[in-house]
Amino acid sequence: MTIEGNSSPISNRRLRLGMVGGGQGSFIGAVHRIAARLDDRFELVAGALSSDAARAKSSAVELHIAEDRAYTDFREMAKMEAAREDGIDVVSIVTPNNMHFEPAKAFLEAGINVICDKPMTLNSDEARELISIVEQSGKKFALTHNYTGYPMARQARQMIAEGALGKIRVVQVEYPQDWLTTKQEGGDNKQANWRTDPKQSGAGGCIGDIGTHAYNLANFVTGLKPTEICAELTAFVEGRLLDDNAQIMMRYENGARGMLWSSQVAPGNENGLRLRVYGEKAGLEWSQEDPNYLLFSPFGEQPRHITRGGAGNLPIAEAGTRIPPGHPEGYLEGFANIYSDIADMIISDADTLVPNVHDGLDGLKFIEAAVSSSQQGALWTPID
Amino acid sequence: MTIEGNSSPISNRRLRLGMVGGGQGSFIGAVHRIAARLDDRFELVAGALSSDAARAKSSAVELHIAEDRAYTDFREMAKMEAAREDGIDVVSIVTPNNMHFEPAKAFLEAGINVICDKPMTLNSDEARELISIVEQSGKKFALTHNYTGYPMARQARQMIAEGALGKIRVVQVEYPQDWLTTKQEGGDNKQANWRTDPKQSGAGGCIGDIGTHAYNLANFVTGLKPTEICAELTAFVEGRLLDDNAQIMMRYENGARGMLWSSQVAPGNENGLRLRVYGEKAGLEWSQEDPNYLLFSPFGEQPRHITRGGAGNLPIAEAGTRIPPGHPEGYLEGFANIYSDIADMIISDADTLVPNVHDGLDGLKFIEAAVSSSQQGALWTPID
Amino acid sequence: MTIEGNSSPISNRRLRLGMVGGGQGSFIGAVHRIAARLDDRFELVAGALSSDAARAKSSAVELHIAEDRAYTDFREMAKMEAAREDGIDVVSIVTPNNMHFEPAKAFLEAGINVICDKPMTLNSDEARELISIVEQSGKKFALTHNYTGYPMARQARQMIAEGALGKIRVVQVEYPQDWLTTKQEGGDNKQANWRTDPKQSGAGGCIGDIGTHAYNLANFVTGLKPTEICAELTAFVEGRLLDDNAQIMMRYENGARGMLWSSQVAPGNENGLRLRVYGEKAGLEWSQEDPNYLLFSPFGEQPRHITRGGAGNLPIAEAGTRIPPGHPEGYLEGFANIYSDIADMIISDADTLVPNVHDGLDGLKFIEAAVSSSQQGALWTPID
Amino acid sequence: MTIEGNSSPISNRRLRLGMVGGGQGSFIGAVHRIAARLDDRFELVAGALSSDAARAKSSAVELHIAEDRAYTDFREMAKMEAAREDGIDVVSIVTPNNMHFEPAKAFLEAGINVICDKPMTLNSDEARELISIVEQSGKKFALTHNYTGYPMARQARQMIAEGALGKIRVVQVEYPQDWLTTKQEGGDNKQANWRTDPKQSGAGGCIGDIGTHAYNLANFVTGLKPTEICAELTAFVEGRLLDDNAQIMMRYENGARGMLWSSQVAPGNENGLRLRVYGEKAGLEWSQEDPNYLLFSPFGEQPRHITRGGAGNLPIAEAGTRIPPGHPEGYLEGFANIYSDIADMIISDADTLVPNVHDGLDGLKFIEAAVSSSQQGALWTPID
Repeated sequence: MTIEGNSSPISNRRLRLGMVGGGQGSFIGAVHRIAARLDDRFELVAGALSSDAARAKSSAVELHIAEDRAYTDFREMAKMEAAREDGIDVVSIVTPNNMHFEPAKAFLEAGINVICDKPMTLNSDEARELISIVEQSGKKFALTHNYTGYPMARQARQMIAEGALGKIRVVQVEYPQDWLTTKQEGGDNKQANWRTDPKQSGAGGCIGDIGTHAYNLANFVTGLKPTEICAELTAFVEGRLLDDNAQIMMRYENGARGMLWSSQVAPGNENGLRLRVYGEKAGLEWSQEDPNYLLFSPFGEQPRHITRGGAGNLPIAEAGTRIPPGHPEGYLEGFANIYSDIADMIISDADTLVPNVHDGLDGLKFIEAAVSSSQQGALWTPID
Repeated sequence: MTIEGNSSPISNRRLRLGMVGGGQGSFIGAVHRIAARLDDRFELVAGALSSDAARAKSSAVELHIAEDRAYTDFREMAKMEAAREDGIDVVSIVTPNNMHFEPAKAFLEAGINVICDKPMTLNSDEARELISIVEQSGKKFALTHNYTGYPMARQARQMIAEGALGKIRVVQVEYPQDWLTTKQEGGDNKQANWRTDPKQSGAGGCIGDIGTHAYNLANFVTGLKPTEICAELTAFVEGRLLDDNAQIMMRYENGARGMLWSSQVAPGNENGLRLRVYGEKAGLEWSQEDPNYLLFSPFGEQPRHITRGGAGNLPIAEAGTRIPPGHPEGYLEGFANIYSDIADMIISDADTLVPNVHDGLDGLKFIEAAVSSSQQGALWTPID
Repeated sequence: MTIEGNSSPISNRRLRLGMVGGGQGSFIGAVHRIAARLDDRFELVAGALSSDAARAKSSAVELHIAEDRAYTDFREMAKMEAAREDGIDVVSIVTPNNMHFEPAKAFLEAGINVICDKPMTLNSDEARELISIVEQSGKKFALTHNYTGYPMARQARQMIAEGALGKIRVVQVEYPQDWLTTKQEGGDNKQANWRTDPKQSGAGGCIGDIGTHAYNLANFVTGLKPTEICAELTAFVEGRLLDDNAQIMMRYENGARGMLWSSQVAPGNENGLRLRVYGEKAGLEWSQEDPNYLLFSPFGEQPRHITRGGAGNLPIAEAGTRIPPGHPEGYLEGFANIYSDIADMIISDADTLVPNVHDGLDGLKFIEAAVSSSQQGALWTPID
Repeated sequence: MTIEGNSSPISNRRLRLGMVGGGQGSFIGAVHRIAARLDDRFELVAGALSSDAARAKSSAVELHIAEDRAYTDFREMAKMEAAREDGIDVVSIVTPNNMHFEPAKAFLEAGINVICDKPMTLNSDEARELISIVEQSGKKFALTHNYTGYPMARQARQMIAEGALGKIRVVQVEYPQDWLTTKQEGGDNKQANWRTDPKQSGAGGCIGDIGTHAYNLANFVTGLKPTEICAELTAFVEGRLLDDNAQIMMRYENGARGMLWSSQVAPGNENGLRLRVYGEKAGLEWSQEDPNYLLFSPFGEQPRHITRGGAGNLPIAEAGTRIPPGHPEGYLEGFANIYSDIADMIISDADTLVPNVHDGLDGLKFIEAAVSSSQQGALWTPID
């Protein structure tokens, strides 16, 4: 292990990072920056932080970005940075969903690697086009389904891949929140406004915002993808334009069966992403709100706690661990694991677990199948 | 409060109890007897404990039943007990599902009150006929959906009825177990044998055995009944004749949406009945494996623990509480609350929360709708 | 296994039980009666339920005790019952502490087995005298340190005896409650009144009422007894005559070190008896409020849950288990295990784990050493 | 709120940070660096990372420290940095305990602010001298009792200060670990080697390493300091030179009573720092391994969860919160709060909660009183 960070970089060169979006008032922009900083492998040097010129400037000043690299237009930024010798290695796109595709395209075509927030695009057509663009560019594209960065989620994935559960039968995943229990949109709540606006979010509300996380995590951990789903999307709050509750049943090719529930109107739930997987031989349970533990229950034996950094951790979990067991790591450290992997990908072309443009398309296909199923009265609908 | 027990009986007369089924090798028979004894309001005095004459006798001896009241035939028992001056007040029917209807009919027609295990009958036709029989008999009929006997489940029901959650939006109920993860039937495991046998269990396996408990509890607590469901029933273990996993989506008349999962192939789950209900104003969560606590989360406020016997208990919860908070009561005490209520019903015609013959029909309609939905590929199917 | 109950009685003869104390208004009397009934091995037939004649009568009527066996004087009861052919086999003494010794003596000398609540006597002199009386009588004497009846406490004891932890190093036991946080005594609260009254409780308040439970449990599970202790007893509530908080350090002969905390003024704690034991090889943790689980942590391995009725249960735990894992048993079932063991002791002279008259003396010596230590400013004080 | 970080800096100037110790193989050095980076308020520019010249160089290279600022001698570093116009604003001292005092002195006397790991010095004499040095220097001195940086620990402190618990009666604090259950020292385990070596650690082993954290946290949260203690320190592992288990009773001036347990030989415990405080009106409980929650139990009311970022957070807790409730923050974020506060102290002379040189002396007095008490057979010993 090297002196710093969560993995074994072959180089300690700090990558030059740019950011699109994430100016004052953004939630996820600050999260990306902390994640990028945490293992000291990135340096934020450029940004188109806001489409509002004044806000873009003042945000940049706060973030130590030089004046000449504080852009107001992402296309300009892509062009200028590509032209500099010390131009950015990679850009993070942290805008609302409707502003993912165009910036991603611009930077990739300028030869700059891209980190993009999820859902990847507004719809699957854009997603398919983006796959082509990525492939033509030869650059890296990473999608921040950040929950896959938690060491215990990766431990679970690896255990399942190695057969610890036997053939998977049942997948139960859920992601309840409560912050949209009452009408939050239509006023000053910037987060609520764009996340409930079809123009900015696309066809999915809750299903796109957090349902895709649940879906992605279940696929990531089990190594399985559903072939068809039956989805009931509901907007409980009066006047809300997008779903705030999604209940879905899933069928897998191997015969496994799943349920997915995501909600933003479930009082008492903060960020309750939880995955349970059951196979012929054992069960595994993990909860994002208590992320340092994994419950492993071989059938007929005593259930045991696997703890981040503790006994029985596989190398993939150890690699994403900075501090000893009992010293809780959390959301930001999991997010930082994604960023550190991206650094490895860019510097050394490393093979990592970071979600990519294909996972991004999977997410859009899931949203679209769910919306379509629901519009037909919750009929079984193939994903594809 | 009186000196004994969990409620305020107007009389301390012990009811004379008979039992059909529950001989050596039975699980639920012993549970019923403990429940009946716990508050000292019943005395077991007669039984048709087994159709095997020798076993019926030896079981009776063990249970202090007089020789002349150890029957081998339930019809004989009904006739004889009805004729005695000191005949039984009530009979408990604790046989497999296919042996519920006939005994119930026999005792009711003999003028004897009936306690019956769930699911109530083999199918909804029998259930409808039993409703008529109960009504004609004028006797009490109690169905042991015992989880409704837990004080915190009753507290939850009452809180919802009083509007603590506002209008209900989301109902999430689940009941995972793991004991049938591998093939247990076909050998000595009497419990596994009959519970996986359509002839004895009816059309539902897991859905009938424990799914009905989950369904009943959700209806009991919320005061709502689904109007249609979409059910995916699966038999994962090779050669199993009935479902061992059930995933169901539910629609309610008031617009609420629900999910129900029951499984007997989920390793690490012992008896994980859990209910979560979310309304416009608050959420409530309760788990059978930790039954002395209720989590109540008013939107925007700090979640709080309501503890059996502790602050904020409503009279309906206090009535089913024997010992102070922190002294855990469990499954048997919850079951005993049902029995104590039955004593009140019989002695004083008291209005209680004990599930009745109509709840029994609801359960059968649920099983049948689920089986029908599943057979059609999990189509939405009305309950009725 | 036989048809009923938690153990394998060689006989199903119901023992005839008498009770001293436990009339209307008693808490622990009802608990003893439920515990006695639960496995159907006792029948309450006589009682001196109150020193108040009217209350003694009305209590007896409620409890189905025949008029001629409803006594107002325990000496009379001992004499009369001893003389009857159908006299009681055993008496339960459930009075305040100052009324344990004389009734115990009377019944033992009349040749009647005794079950006695804890602490056993008012002081160690009485306790020593009682040992002689028991020995001379040749009768059984059981002390209801009921927490030793929990299957997982017994599992822990057996695992330690078999060396699962290696040599014990550290014992941490605690028993916090909160019900005496404010002044409850001096009014209608009968429980508070006698438990804070030195005349009825003896020299210890909290230390006697619940500290002795913690002490007994730690000794029971570890198989060790401290040789000296350093105790700080405090009465925090103004005007309270006995301690309501006890903090104690303990030294064991084998070099192990322990801490014991009991409190009745710790808001938020209901009945928080909890034991943690650490040895050279592993640790064990158990909590009374979540009694169906035992956490076993071999050093360097994944901690695992041992669950009542589940994988890895030793015969001593299985013997005290009525229902499958996940069906919670609680306080009353643990208490009932003590009663069932007593039945075995009386009927078949069985060797059981039930605390006896020597454990009772241990408890008194502990109280007295603690009080003495505290009065000297918390000096180290030998137990003996 | 500003765009970044956990507080509202009046300036976004990044402080220039130096480090003494923390080269390859250090645990806590990396933690300090992550904490410093997390809110982007420090830039590591100089270091005397190791006394081994080669290791000092290679460590510096890895950490992007310029060659001319990679020192091998802390005195040289202090002198040179003080002389540079762009010299460091503050130095972090992350060496073993015996190497705290001299570096701290050197930097303070060179006019450079100091961040120092705990325990502050080898003994209280050094600590007292350091107080003088700090006072004469006029510079800031911060001690990284990092657990005080957790938002919920600060919330607890503020609630108690505002009277939410009433007068404090009972303080129960514990800090069990298990990593020294067997002999780890004497080989390659650098952490074990110095932490069990009196020459490097001072008179306390476990009591100094983690007992001081527990002590500091209890004082921080309650606002109380014990006046005398009774301590039993034990070295359970054969040949170990310092205690690996400490059990302590504490008396407070206001009459409160406390217990403190710290251990490094308690299998199954990872980093179990836990504090419980009980007053006349309420109780508060917090656990470092589940740090985003605080249990608040007003006497006679339902216990409630206060969750970081959730309802009822006081400004002091909100200030240390980066992400919404349900997105767990952990050890590194708590540590980073300390660093951000230090930035505020240095830049704007802000008043913060960061432990200072006086807290450092308190820690040493505690260690010395504990060692002295224990050496006398665990006699009550004043702290001072």
